[in-house]
Amino acid sequence: MDNGLPFLKMHGAGNDFVVLDARTDPIALTTAQSTLLADRRRGIGCDQIILIEPSASADAFMRILNADGSEAGACGNATRCVAALLAAETGARALTIETNAGHLAAIIKGPNLVEIDMGEPRLDWQDIPLLEAMDTLHLRLALGPVEDPAACSMGNPHATFFVDDFRHLALDTIGPRLESARIFPERANIGFARIEAKDRIRLRVWERGAGLTLACGSGACAALVNANRRGLADRRAEIEMDGGILTITWREDNHVLMEGPVALTCQGTLAPELLPA
Amino acid sequence: MDNGLPFLKMHGAGNDFVVLDARTDPIALTTAQSTLLADRRRGIGCDQIILIEPSASADAFMRILNADGSEAGACGNATRCVAALLAAETGARALTIETNAGHLAAIIKGPNLVEIDMGEPRLDWQDIPLLEAMDTLHLRLALGPVEDPAACSMGNPHATFFVDDFRHLALDTIGPRLESARIFPERANIGFARIEAKDRIRLRVWERGAGLTLACGSGACAALVNANRRGLADRRAEIEMDGGILTITWREDNHVLMEGPVALTCQGTLAPELLPA
Repeated sequence: MDNGLPFLKMHGAGNDFVVLDARTDPIALTTAQSTLLADRRRGIGCDQIILIEPSASADAFMRILNADGSEAGACGNATRCVAALLAAETGARALTIETNAGHLAAIIKGPNLVEIDMGEPRLDWQDIPLLEAMDTLHLRLALGPVEDPAACSMGNPHATFFVDDFRHLALDTIGPRLESARIFPERANIGFARIEAKDRIRLRVWERGAGLTLACGSGACAALVNANRRGLADRRAEIEMDGGILTITWREDNHVLMEGPVALTCQGTLAPELLPA
Repeated sequence: MDNGLPFLKMHGAGNDFVVLDARTDPIALTTAQSTLLADRRRGIGCDQIILIEPSASADAFMRILNADGSEAGACGNATRCVAALLAAETGARALTIETNAGHLAAIIKGPNLVEIDMGEPRLDWQDIPLLEAMDTLHLRLALGPVEDPAACSMGNPHATFFVDDFRHLALDTIGPRLESARIFPERANIGFARIEAKDRIRLRVWERGAGLTLACGSGACAALVNANRRGLADRRAEIEMDGGILTITWREDNHVLMEGPVALTCQGTLAPELLPA
């Protein structure tokens, strides 16, 4: 057990990760191993497993495994955590992290605060993608009390509904129906945003394939972009999610920056029954 | 972080624990610290926190904290875990663990298998307690498709309904209503048992104050006792719960023995932000 595989548990705005360092010795997880590791009672428990791997073109490659063993493209909350870890090793204030969705630039803004350049939003209907040509600022989509969302892509498809109140919305019922609406051929992440002020938005996100989560980084970016396009928000706003606050900036050069917290929960070694070293 | 407070994460049949060793240096947790430690995303995550403390009359005292910081009396699954830990230190095969509910004797049956003497069941209506004098083998209680439970106390009140099938039972709806039925002045744990054979029972338990859990040790004991009293089971049976199998024996001297698995998940140190060393 003292010779078990080392791990870290971290979270970014309540989105939590088991982080394994595979830079020196490769780590290959079977689906069963990933599932057990992510199991919150029989394993360590996490939303995603993060493997830090070597990269020829960045400070590290970040591989993201979902609890079902499938591989995810990108995760802003995890990128902040990995950037903070790498920065703690080298003292670097600016890093680049390679993911399956491309290279992400990270800047250390404080001891537990990291900013990620999430790239440029895509606003054309083909890029989201939508089913057919239409104005992405006003989708022809309504379900019960919600209607008229705006859509954009942050590498993954997002639609944002603007709502006055959450109390009467059964998000766990309308979320999955909207996610799979015919208008989204690759399904979509569905955000529900309440504008508190030009610089503050309350947001809940139904994530494609994951349901309601405590925080969705790309969903926060999409909410700010869509709110600004509608004239409802400035180009910089605090996005308050269940798990914490992300500060999103849509810079004049069209890049979207996400600034948010990271936290280390514990470090240790895995029992060999869970994962042999 | 390397100097953080050491912890272990363990589970017994899917009932999981963060275990802290307070034998040398006392550990006093505030409610906020307990809640954060048990938080599955922002903390380590567990059903209960276990403090191992010194005992003048047993191998150790086991303090059990619920996720809300309140203190629990006894927990068979946790007792197995603590017994396995203590046995690994000393090589002992038989141990005594002091709890707020009394002393529990444990026997190491295998590398990850521990038997706990859960004491004697109490079958009188006053001892459960019930509202008024009645035969505890047939309670006058019914709700929708379930009826006619048997009751006993294993230190806490239990009622066991015998069912043919789980498919049509909305346990999360009928569980809380039965738990708080007027017949149980101190509420009760509600078991739903399907007899598979004289020596095998499928069991789900709605735990008082906790809801449906993966495994309830005292509920498994109560199910075996009540099934045997009804002539539905032998005095020894495997009780299959969602989280694993417990083997329960109602010995001729009236003691109930619970044998079940323990597993170590990881060991490590807590981040100082979570709990200062």
